Amino acid sequence: MSLVVQKYGGSSVADAESIKRVAKRIVAAKRAGNEVVVVVSAMGDTTDELIDLAQQVSPLPEGRELDMLLTSGERISMALLAMAIGSLGVEARSFTGSQAGVITDRVHNRARIIRVTPGRIHKALEEGAIAIVAGFQGVSDDTKDITTLGRGGSDTTAVALAAAMGAEVCEIYTDVDGVYTADPRLVPSARKLAAVRYEEMLELAASGAKILHLRCVEYARRFDVPIHVRSSFSTLEGTWIRNTPEGAEMEQAIIAGVAHDTSEAKITVIGVPDKPGEAARIFRAVADAEINIDMVVQNVSAASTGLTDISFTLPKTDGAKAVNLLDKLKERIGFDSLAYDDQIAKVSLIGAGMKSHPGVTASFFEALAQAGVNAEMISTSEIRISVVCRADSVKPAVTAIHTAFDLDADDEAVVYAGTGR
Amino acid sequence: MSLVVQKYGGSSVADAESIKRVAKRIVAAKRAGNEVVVVVSAMGDTTDELIDLAQQVSPLPEGRELDMLLTSGERISMALLAMAIGSLGVEARSFTGSQAGVITDRVHNRARIIRVTPGRIHKALEEGAIAIVAGFQGVSDDTKDITTLGRGGSDTTAVALAAAMGAEVCEIYTDVDGVYTADPRLVPSARKLAAVRYEEMLELAASGAKILHLRCVEYARRFDVPIHVRSSFSTLEGTWIRNTPEGAEMEQAIIAGVAHDTSEAKITVIGVPDKPGEAARIFRAVADAEINIDMVVQNVSAASTGLTDISFTLPKTDGAKAVNLLDKLKERIGFDSLAYDDQIAKVSLIGAGMKSHPGVTASFFEALAQAGVNAEMISTSEIRISVVCRADSVKPAVTAIHTAFDLDADDEAVVYAGTGR
Repeated sequence: MSLVVQKYGGSSVADAESIKRVAKRIVAAKRAGNEVVVVVSAMGDTTDELIDLAQQVSPLPEGRELDMLLTSGERISMALLAMAIGSLGVEARSFTGSQAGVITDRVHNRARIIRVTPGRIHKALEEGAIAIVAGFQGVSDDTKDITTLGRGGSDTTAVALAAAMGAEVCEIYTDVDGVYTADPRLVPSARKLAAVRYEEMLELAASGAKILHLRCVEYARRFDVPIHVRSSFSTLEGTWIRNTPEGAEMEQAIIAGVAHDTSEAKITVIGVPDKPGEAARIFRAVADAEINIDMVVQNVSAASTGLTDISFTLPKTDGAKAVNLLDKLKERIGFDSLAYDDQIAKVSLIGAGMKSHPGVTASFFEALAQAGVNAEMISTSEIRISVVCRADSVKPAVTAIHTAFDLDADDEAVVYAGTGR
Repeated sequence: MSLVVQKYGGSSVADAESIKRVAKRIVAAKRAGNEVVVVVSAMGDTTDELIDLAQQVSPLPEGRELDMLLTSGERISMALLAMAIGSLGVEARSFTGSQAGVITDRVHNRARIIRVTPGRIHKALEEGAIAIVAGFQGVSDDTKDITTLGRGGSDTTAVALAAAMGAEVCEIYTDVDGVYTADPRLVPSARKLAAVRYEEMLELAASGAKILHLRCVEYARRFDVPIHVRSSFSTLEGTWIRNTPEGAEMEQAIIAGVAHDTSEAKITVIGVPDKPGEAARIFRAVADAEINIDMVVQNVSAASTGLTDISFTLPKTDGAKAVNLLDKLKERIGFDSLAYDDQIAKVSLIGAGMKSHPGVTASFFEALAQAGVNAEMISTSEIRISVVCRADSVKPAVTAIHTAFDLDADDEAVVYAGTGR
């Protein structure tokens, strides 16, 4: 008998009807001969509604209490799901993060999993029941306080449980049917990928693909947990995320897909003295405010002035904070002025094959040039090329790159030889 | 420093504004120099809404899962209350029933408290925080599953914590300002009692007074926990429930109050053979169906027939079930017919003083007779007289008895010499 971990997001359990539909699906997996562990998020907008309530009673809710509040959301969905399964004649038992042995550090609202000790889950499975586990939550190792894992937390719970229990697969059910070569809303000819490697999925997630959170993919890669991302509204195969089996390497496609991200802004610090330590000062100040910066470009300084400009991108939501912060440090750092630009977008091409295909970079920039898109900043990794362009150039940029690399559905290119299973 | 346990019901924390109001009250108790433990119910109609959701996904939800579901209600209210207190500059920490050490048996939906081990609550108090505890819930001793205590559960949690921690008082906050000599909606001249003894409160609760659940009063009596029932909407003294101090006995009033109950129905089993064991058969059948019967009357059998009639009262909600049950046993028990009557009411006079005042029973029936109310069934305890009458006689019956025993507010009789504290 093989062990399957399934994770259902909030949109899959948004109301009683959805819960009953998901229950049938879970029971089918059990009746097909699997041991089934289900991780579930809070119903629909529950979490947002609870945060709204919290803000009504307190301008700055304590982290511990916010976690206590938010974890009620999964408690509701998991109990209802267990009942719905029970009414189909199959026993299901729900477990909180704490009961499931999800042990975390004590950082409220964005705790990290330290270890998983799923003794009660194993026992439930041995006794023939389906185990339903609250996603997103755990209990702190030392203080025994309830914690939450932050964004993407339920996916991480599912992968962590799958890793700890040696599951054959972690199925992530969502409202789309897999990972595409580009966002289908932007590029109608985008194709669903049958499979993608962990490192590619990490770059896709980091470059704006919203289907899986970075942290969950990192966890899966570390413990080599195969993820199957699929729709809870159909029975179609979705996208497998896993390492390519040995020997399949030669069939590997060059490119996985094109991702874009319009959630970032660009700050340019103008007229910074070009001597050692100045850039460090700027980035230390930003980091101390817990702002994550993404791309960085430093101009070659003008010989005549000894001054340079430093540009970096960061989440738009942190934009105002960063500008205020830097403005206060203007004298100390000794720069001329700040420019803030939130009309930018990042477009990225991702593919493990580009390591060994030197022509990719050239083709990428040729495609951009032909589409009339100007690259304002450039950054690359071994398997990714990203550029920052004007926000209104996103669609032509992504479309041009998608076509240039033969990703469009019409030509039926096999992007990746893996066919799932 | 004295320890106070406060309990707030669902109507006291129905929305964000109410929660902020209650938070101020709790902070005031803390600033007055007390150690404060707060027990809280779910917000407003949350529990009913959750039960409704459960019924949408399952016709007969599993007890374990229903408890998991319902306990999310207090989790929400207690976290919000802790945040609201925090925003007033006082630290508050919320604890689930399990975290607070409320250990129960494993009977889901109506668990009984086995013991309370409030180590984390003590620690929170020692560290200067207010402790907020989820009412109504606990964790089973052996299976470590989440349980709920059933009706009146939050009151019971509060009294149990007060007992385990040696609190000076358990304050039960509700939407009325105390215990009255009769239901003020029925008898406008009813007066608030300054104090009432445990045994009287038990009889009042058993006779239809809804302010406190029987179980919570039983617990308080067993552990001698003084209860102060009061309104969360005013700062008036409410009603104290406790034993009369030694020496105050002589000032004890005869009567505490008049209670009524219109939630019961009467079943009469007609033509039962009057031989040993027949009544037992009837009551065993009813008891096996977990139906609680209240009053019982057996007529003297007619010498000519050797048959008798047996009447008993039971909750209306169990009426149909009991009638069906008995109908099926008609042949085996050998009775003629069944009569079902749900147009009845029970009216009760309660007072510890009646033990030593033989005139009470006579005055009680004289008052009923003068009001033209016919008593259909009668039952008494040491400190209570109850009659069953027609449902539409409730108001004249209660009013007449209330007046006959000098309970009306106008004459300003001192019902009970205790004046609170």
